[in-house]
Amino acid sequence: MKKLQRIIKTRAQIISESILKVDSFLNHQIDYDLMEAIGEEFFHYFKEKNVDRVLTIEASGIAIGMATAKFFQKPFVFAKKKKPNTMSGEVLSTKVVSFTKNIAYDISLSSEFINFGENILIVDDFLARGNAALGLCKLVEKAGANVAGIGIVIEKSFQPGREMLLAKGYDICSLARIKSLKNNKISFY
Amino acid sequence: MKKLQRIIKTRAQIISESILKVDSFLNHQIDYDLMEAIGEEFFHYFKEKNVDRVLTIEASGIAIGMATAKFFQKPFVFAKKKKPNTMSGEVLSTKVVSFTKNIAYDISLSSEFINFGENILIVDDFLARGNAALGLCKLVEKAGANVAGIGIVIEKSFQPGREMLLAKGYDICSLARIKSLKNNKISFY
Repeated sequence: MKKLQRIIKTRAQIISESILKVDSFLNHQIDYDLMEAIGEEFFHYFKEKNVDRVLTIEASGIAIGMATAKFFQKPFVFAKKKKPNTMSGEVLSTKVVSFTKNIAYDISLSSEFINFGENILIVDDFLARGNAALGLCKLVEKAGANVAGIGIVIEKSFQPGREMLLAKGYDICSLARIKSLKNNKISFY
Repeated sequence: MKKLQRIIKTRAQIISESILKVDSFLNHQIDYDLMEAIGEEFFHYFKEKNVDRVLTIEASGIAIGMATAKFFQKPFVFAKKKKPNTMSGEVLSTKVVSFTKNIAYDISLSSEFINFGENILIVDDFLARGNAALGLCKLVEKAGANVAGIGIVIEKSFQPGREMLLAKGYDICSLARIKSLKNNKISFY
């Protein structure tokens, strides 16, 4: 997705060889038109998958999930990183380790929002080691639903997430695949 | 906003006399068409205010901020409840007490995303005692910007947030004003 690559080139900041800061357009301030273009790309890639629902994770996934849901005309749901005190009934949860943030946390989802047999499209902002995406896949499968695919905005292709998820048979669409952040330079596949 | 009142009547669950669960359409699973209608209502109400930017708070505010930003054709930014390790430069922050969740937390915002003199429209899902909205107003004013107004999806009008914010001179647009949740019944103004 050329537009996204151009925005990353001009507006992202390289923090280290493994961390890219995209606060100005993706996960702190958000560019609506970019989100819409992202949603449309995911729709284009996954439109034959009979998607019943879009699933993402708070907080950075929400704008992406919403833009994607717009094109599929389906509801979207976001997993929570803390179980709120109003979440009742059957709750699906699993543990996710974030190496970027150096923490482990539980993600939770009310089981009423994913039905048995549905095709669920997972979307998220980053794919690095793949732990968040894998956690979302586990929630989908705990509900007896199918992972229709995984849509990622920015993939750090120098980390093993993509291979791990492909090996498990998931279909992945990454809109920008970063080969390297070395020497203070962003290079794409 | 009649559509919103109808959805609240049919899909919200009364948890107690002060807590309403809106997980099925507003803050866990999200209905895209409803979000768009909400964004359009806020645009209609605040369109003369020369809004430069929309500000909300993670996580439940994000979909609302995005829908509002769509109509204003302006960027939106969400304050964070934890300072991420990629947030650098000057950070604006203030403390917010949540009575619903029974916790106090800091909200943070990179100062680069609110400029001196800008008109900032604040939007959020709920207004109860008004602490989250007031915290966002404080961030805006710390940046030397103006609060153009406060757009709220669901106001618990039996709690003092509205009066407190009106007394401070803020313009509030609440799309659904709940008078009472007593006797397991939702009544609106």
